[in-house]
Amino acid sequence: MPIILTINAGSSSVKFQCFEMTDEVCLAKGQVDRLGSPSPNLFYKRHDSVTHQTNVPPVEYETVFHSIFEILLNIEKGILQNLNDIAAVGHRVVHGGSRFAESALITPKVETAIDQCIPLAPLHNPYNLGGIHACRQALPNATHVAVFDTAFHQTMPDYAYMYALPYSLYEQHGIRRYGFHGTSHRYVSMRAAEILGHPLTSLKLITCHLGNGCSLTAVNQGRSVDTSMGLTPLEGLMMGTRSGDIDPAIIFHLMEEGQMPAAAINQMLNRESGLLGISGIASDVRDLFRAVSEGNPMAALALKMFSYRVRQYIGKYAAVLGGLDALIFTAGIGENAPSIRATICEKLGFLGIHLDEEKNRSDEMEKVIHQADAPVKLLVIPTNEELMIARDTLRLIEGSGT
Amino acid sequence: MPIILTINAGSSSVKFQCFEMTDEVCLAKGQVDRLGSPSPNLFYKRHDSVTHQTNVPPVEYETVFHSIFEILLNIEKGILQNLNDIAAVGHRVVHGGSRFAESALITPKVETAIDQCIPLAPLHNPYNLGGIHACRQALPNATHVAVFDTAFHQTMPDYAYMYALPYSLYEQHGIRRYGFHGTSHRYVSMRAAEILGHPLTSLKLITCHLGNGCSLTAVNQGRSVDTSMGLTPLEGLMMGTRSGDIDPAIIFHLMEEGQMPAAAINQMLNRESGLLGISGIASDVRDLFRAVSEGNPMAALALKMFSYRVRQYIGKYAAVLGGLDALIFTAGIGENAPSIRATICEKLGFLGIHLDEEKNRSDEMEKVIHQADAPVKLLVIPTNEELMIARDTLRLIEGSGT
Repeated sequence: MPIILTINAGSSSVKFQCFEMTDEVCLAKGQVDRLGSPSPNLFYKRHDSVTHQTNVPPVEYETVFHSIFEILLNIEKGILQNLNDIAAVGHRVVHGGSRFAESALITPKVETAIDQCIPLAPLHNPYNLGGIHACRQALPNATHVAVFDTAFHQTMPDYAYMYALPYSLYEQHGIRRYGFHGTSHRYVSMRAAEILGHPLTSLKLITCHLGNGCSLTAVNQGRSVDTSMGLTPLEGLMMGTRSGDIDPAIIFHLMEEGQMPAAAINQMLNRESGLLGISGIASDVRDLFRAVSEGNPMAALALKMFSYRVRQYIGKYAAVLGGLDALIFTAGIGENAPSIRATICEKLGFLGIHLDEEKNRSDEMEKVIHQADAPVKLLVIPTNEELMIARDTLRLIEGSGT
Repeated sequence: MPIILTINAGSSSVKFQCFEMTDEVCLAKGQVDRLGSPSPNLFYKRHDSVTHQTNVPPVEYETVFHSIFEILLNIEKGILQNLNDIAAVGHRVVHGGSRFAESALITPKVETAIDQCIPLAPLHNPYNLGGIHACRQALPNATHVAVFDTAFHQTMPDYAYMYALPYSLYEQHGIRRYGFHGTSHRYVSMRAAEILGHPLTSLKLITCHLGNGCSLTAVNQGRSVDTSMGLTPLEGLMMGTRSGDIDPAIIFHLMEEGQMPAAAINQMLNRESGLLGISGIASDVRDLFRAVSEGNPMAALALKMFSYRVRQYIGKYAAVLGGLDALIFTAGIGENAPSIRATICEKLGFLGIHLDEEKNRSDEMEKVIHQADAPVKLLVIPTNEELMIARDTLRLIEGSGT
């Protein structure tokens, strides 16, 4: 009965889950958040709903992991008797550059490669590495595995991942489309094939990961062939606070005509744009729905723009795939906002997309929501990146013979 | 028999045509180019193929127009006896901001408005205004009309023209999608309706203007509802030397990691990217075809990327329109590169697009190139922005009673 710990170590939070992999059961999960603030918090929940919440001293980043191991070992609320019960740790790593087309056993060489990708993800990879260092120290006998957000998209052809920039930028700076949310797109693609009862290798899918960050992927025969995020997670769809696609000349225009410094524009595009920027009130669609019901026209415009852009990308990726067998919605908005799903699917009848309003509004979490005779299947599938990380980790420890 | 002169006054060239509007005949046309160099050239061609070519002294911008009037009045090669024979001048103006949804009689107020749009098109509007000033001085009795590249796209809905940026950027700086090539998209839309024998108001069209600059427009019932160029002509498709869509974060990445100054990046995105940037050899597809036939893989990649991106936009705009009646190719590449048209249409059978290879390669300039039973009509239509400018000008002088 191998126990696998998954770690998602970011700048302001560390999330963890413990899986018993014989039955793929999540034994416990939790997170430490508000890292960097004077009073970080630990939230913890065991499979039997026993919970625990506590303040964590504002210590060095790598020390945070001690609090996690402490609660996992807690006699009353924990799930482990000994840290050695953890066979392996699966670490989410945001950027694997062009080096990693799949998950990898962490060796010193792999750590160096993750370190070398820091210029591509300066806000993520250093924390992912911090988590790896801390866990390797605390769990020297466990196998450690890196699962990359970018890996799934390494199957894109060159004409899809290249930007139309001088070729030297690709050769010298690695500037190309990498894509993100790969673990989520991969998970829901596999689950969709199970639900549809067809082999993944026979399917043309578009997967819509619509959360606070949003990306769409064109999945042909199980392989990502194009995706909306690019060198960074800024490109593509409109998001909670990110602009997504814009005319790149806007940046120069704001520098020259608006006298804005580059750093302020960068901050604005990432933190003050998207749903928040247009509505002026919130990045969360629940708040926007409330505002719309109170007659706020800017919230209505923000939601209209959001759905319009997703619909455009569905058309774009249908053209990439040469047609479409199924469309999958996942992540916060994709799973929980039926009216947004409905607006996105409007006008897509010509593609064979016909939403069933009643199924779309059912309470089930995982569901098929197309009309019975529709050529294109529509699915809502709750994403589970942690389970995917645990599965990859299990596969690699089995393969490595540890 | 009203004679109308059209003027397209840019930074490095001034193009002109003279039309006799009873039969819409072009009496003569020409251009002064290499403006700003030590030896500008004038090229001129009369309807009966009499030509003239001469050096022009490197004088002030507005003085260039004297050379144009001189050749038009030339006893041997000209077409006019008196400048007063010109009833009106139609001036191409690149940027009309949100002020102009159609062509306008030039009044002092209109000139001021064009001047106010200079921050949106600093490389174009000043020269367009220079042409207006020069021609008003030389032809004080003629009516002058401004025809805007942006006007046709003013019918876009807000959710299409807004960027997902803080709303104040739109209010304070006019930052929104404007779109360009409007006169061309409008011309080929109208001509397509004539060829198809259906009223324009019944048609869903996608017009592909593929020249050195490239843009696609979704035209619903004769109105532009979305277009690929944005605040500036940089956004959208891959072009001769322009990047089109990129992850906007690439700009900050190059500033921080690549230590490139903003001005150099701006220059690079506009002048050193696109087909030229990827191939490393040329921005002209004819040169790239030659290189491909000699086995150059970078030229092949550049052309593959070009077609791929057009195909993606066709899918995107089909989703905007909710289906498609006809797809129209125009401008240098669109009119003259059958193999690019063929590559673009690959994989679009699911939309009802079926190219007839033989028709596609026929020598006719204007042609229908879809298979006889294809649901979506495919048309090649040579664009004629000058005729459209002349028609608008005629309509306005008739309307104004002059």
